[in-house]
Amino acid sequence: MLSENILVQLFVIFAAAKVAGEIFERLKQPAVIGELLVGVLLGSHALGVIGESEVHHVLQELGAIVLLFMVGLDTRLEDIRVVGARALVVGGLGIVVPFASGAVYVYAVEGSLNEALFLGAAMVATSVGITARVLSDLGVIHALESRIILGAAVVDDVLGLLVLALVSGLAGGDFSLGSIITLAITATGFIIVVGAFGGHAVLRTAPAIDRGRIPRTELSVVLGVCLGLSALAGFIGLAAIIGAFLAGMAFSDLRDRWDLEAQIQPVYELLVPFFFVITGSLVDPGFFTQPATIGMVAVVTLLAIVGKLIGCGGASWGMGRRSMAIVGVGMVPRGEVGIIVATVGLSSNVISEDLYGVVVAMSILTTLVAPPVIKWLFAGRPREKEPTRGPARSREVEGIGG
Amino acid sequence: MLSENILVQLFVIFAAAKVAGEIFERLKQPAVIGELLVGVLLGSHALGVIGESEVHHVLQELGAIVLLFMVGLDTRLEDIRVVGARALVVGGLGIVVPFASGAVYVYAVEGSLNEALFLGAAMVATSVGITARVLSDLGVIHALESRIILGAAVVDDVLGLLVLALVSGLAGGDFSLGSIITLAITATGFIIVVGAFGGHAVLRTAPAIDRGRIPRTELSVVLGVCLGLSALAGFIGLAAIIGAFLAGMAFSDLRDRWDLEAQIQPVYELLVPFFFVITGSLVDPGFFTQPATIGMVAVVTLLAIVGKLIGCGGASWGMGRRSMAIVGVGMVPRGEVGIIVATVGLSSNVISEDLYGVVVAMSILTTLVAPPVIKWLFAGRPREKEPTRGPARSREVEGIGG
Repeated sequence: MLSENILVQLFVIFAAAKVAGEIFERLKQPAVIGELLVGVLLGSHALGVIGESEVHHVLQELGAIVLLFMVGLDTRLEDIRVVGARALVVGGLGIVVPFASGAVYVYAVEGSLNEALFLGAAMVATSVGITARVLSDLGVIHALESRIILGAAVVDDVLGLLVLALVSGLAGGDFSLGSIITLAITATGFIIVVGAFGGHAVLRTAPAIDRGRIPRTELSVVLGVCLGLSALAGFIGLAAIIGAFLAGMAFSDLRDRWDLEAQIQPVYELLVPFFFVITGSLVDPGFFTQPATIGMVAVVTLLAIVGKLIGCGGASWGMGRRSMAIVGVGMVPRGEVGIIVATVGLSSNVISEDLYGVVVAMSILTTLVAPPVIKWLFAGRPREKEPTRGPARSREVEGIGG
Repeated sequence: MLSENILVQLFVIFAAAKVAGEIFERLKQPAVIGELLVGVLLGSHALGVIGESEVHHVLQELGAIVLLFMVGLDTRLEDIRVVGARALVVGGLGIVVPFASGAVYVYAVEGSLNEALFLGAAMVATSVGITARVLSDLGVIHALESRIILGAAVVDDVLGLLVLALVSGLAGGDFSLGSIITLAITATGFIIVVGAFGGHAVLRTAPAIDRGRIPRTELSVVLGVCLGLSALAGFIGLAAIIGAFLAGMAFSDLRDRWDLEAQIQPVYELLVPFFFVITGSLVDPGFFTQPATIGMVAVVTLLAIVGKLIGCGGASWGMGRRSMAIVGVGMVPRGEVGIIVATVGLSSNVISEDLYGVVVAMSILTTLVAPPVIKWLFAGRPREKEPTRGPARSREVEGIGG
């Protein structure tokens, strides 16, 4: 029906992702990193096995949508209440400091406000999945620091998406005060309305769906809402993944009742590798041979680490030096979220391929650096009796690169 | 990342499929029919909501691949052994008679050997899912006739795919004796090698996968093999779905051990609606206002029904008139399989849009006509004590349009 070539490419992308992910897992590294790197290797800038076509873009976007839906599904606003104000401050400062430092640096170097805002946005979001996995492997997932990290990550996700919404809306280039206000109202309105009432609406319609005769209607409803909100977000000028994230959040209360994580997991397994491999394939490895780029990667990565250490660690003031360090380091990994922001920027032609490569490299480096440090900081702390997975984040953890 | 338009289209296709499927289920009709008809309605020839692009083709093909994989997963060669020679004869004659009558008719009318062969191939394959659902609803799934139908359907699937392989290979237009022989050897070789040794290879590697530490590796392996064999089939000039079917067959022995149906089901829910809706969208409803087309639909549908009645019913000689009728009628629905063949023909430009519409109409009509007749033929037959789903086909049944 279609060129055999495309089907062969899909197979190569999928198989390469799984093999690379498996190798990295055996090396005790996150599978995502393997998927990204094999993408760089196979991409048009290197071996040239993976082409660029609308099909690639659609599969990449569908992968990002499923990924953000899963993140949303693990995001319950109640998680913040558990650790309360502390998580709010940690999450909030963990956004402000990295955003400001990243944006100021890029504006100073490149002189482009658009690029500066996007890089700031890419520095913001924490991919807590990596940290949560380390914490649960160490058997300390219920420690106070762990709960603050998980709660603050929820704050980060929600505020980070708001930042992305504003930035990607502004990427149109219209910086008039009127358009900024319009956009801020649209973005905030969409997020607040869907975020606050989506879960409510879902809970109210759930009994009707439960009573339905047709098997698996729930999954159809969930997939439909996810696609629909993604399309709606794109339609009103936001990134589609914002809709996917909000859809996930709306269903988070039904996650266990409908066993949604297990049901979405196969779709995740199929589509998310396309996101990471195709994302990697857009990076030009040649950039990293240039001293200027290497320097920029080093500075941005340093700012990304120091920004979270100061913002989140500082917000944990009064908990003791070691706990402050744990919270700060725990929020460092950017993982997939920073990369998604960069992808949005690249595909809307706001950030250069250079800066895109820098963000991907920064995401990989922050993700690699945090786990060993967390292990070292927790050294000597006794394991909890029942080492369980973090209740709020377990699937994302298992899911990453799974 | 991509035009919002595409994402909106994907949402419309998915939502329309689910709503139409649900309505048809409530009308006690197969959901597939609803999905096809809503596709016709939204298609470029009618409302024009669904466009045609490479993305549509890829999603349609991926849907067909998942669909045929599921059919393959339900196809165990042992099922034939249960009812033995009878199922072989029923399945075999159920292929020969419809193929010959369809091909001869179209050759007489249209004068194109290519079109004749494709129409013959589309008349061949039985979509036994519909019948199996009716049989299990009636509580007679273990009756002798039911077991013959299920076994013969396996024969049909395998031989039908071989016919499709030959026909789609010949569609290249090279009818020299040499190329026909080469193709026959390639196609038969591929099917026999993968069909006979695929399951063996899977069973031998399964323990190693079972021992792996990484969760969900099985699903990755299964999806990878499915994509890989589909790509390989396309690469050697066969239809990609043949590879998908053989991949399903190879894993059929692990179906229960790895709980594969439940694991693939979400992917099925997501992708298969795209196959049916996009397939429907390619049909021009205007054709059916022309008397010539209506006549052709009538003749082809009649041949499709009579062909199976004579072929399969006749092969049940000696079982009594009513049982012969049950077996014949049970094999009548073409459902998705005939349509897949037509789609292959249309996209390789072998059959005209006219003939494509005729095949889709024939598939819909044969699928609608069989269930009430089966119910009527079984009237008065006592229900089995434990009305269970057919062991070999239950998922396909639940899956259809689910």
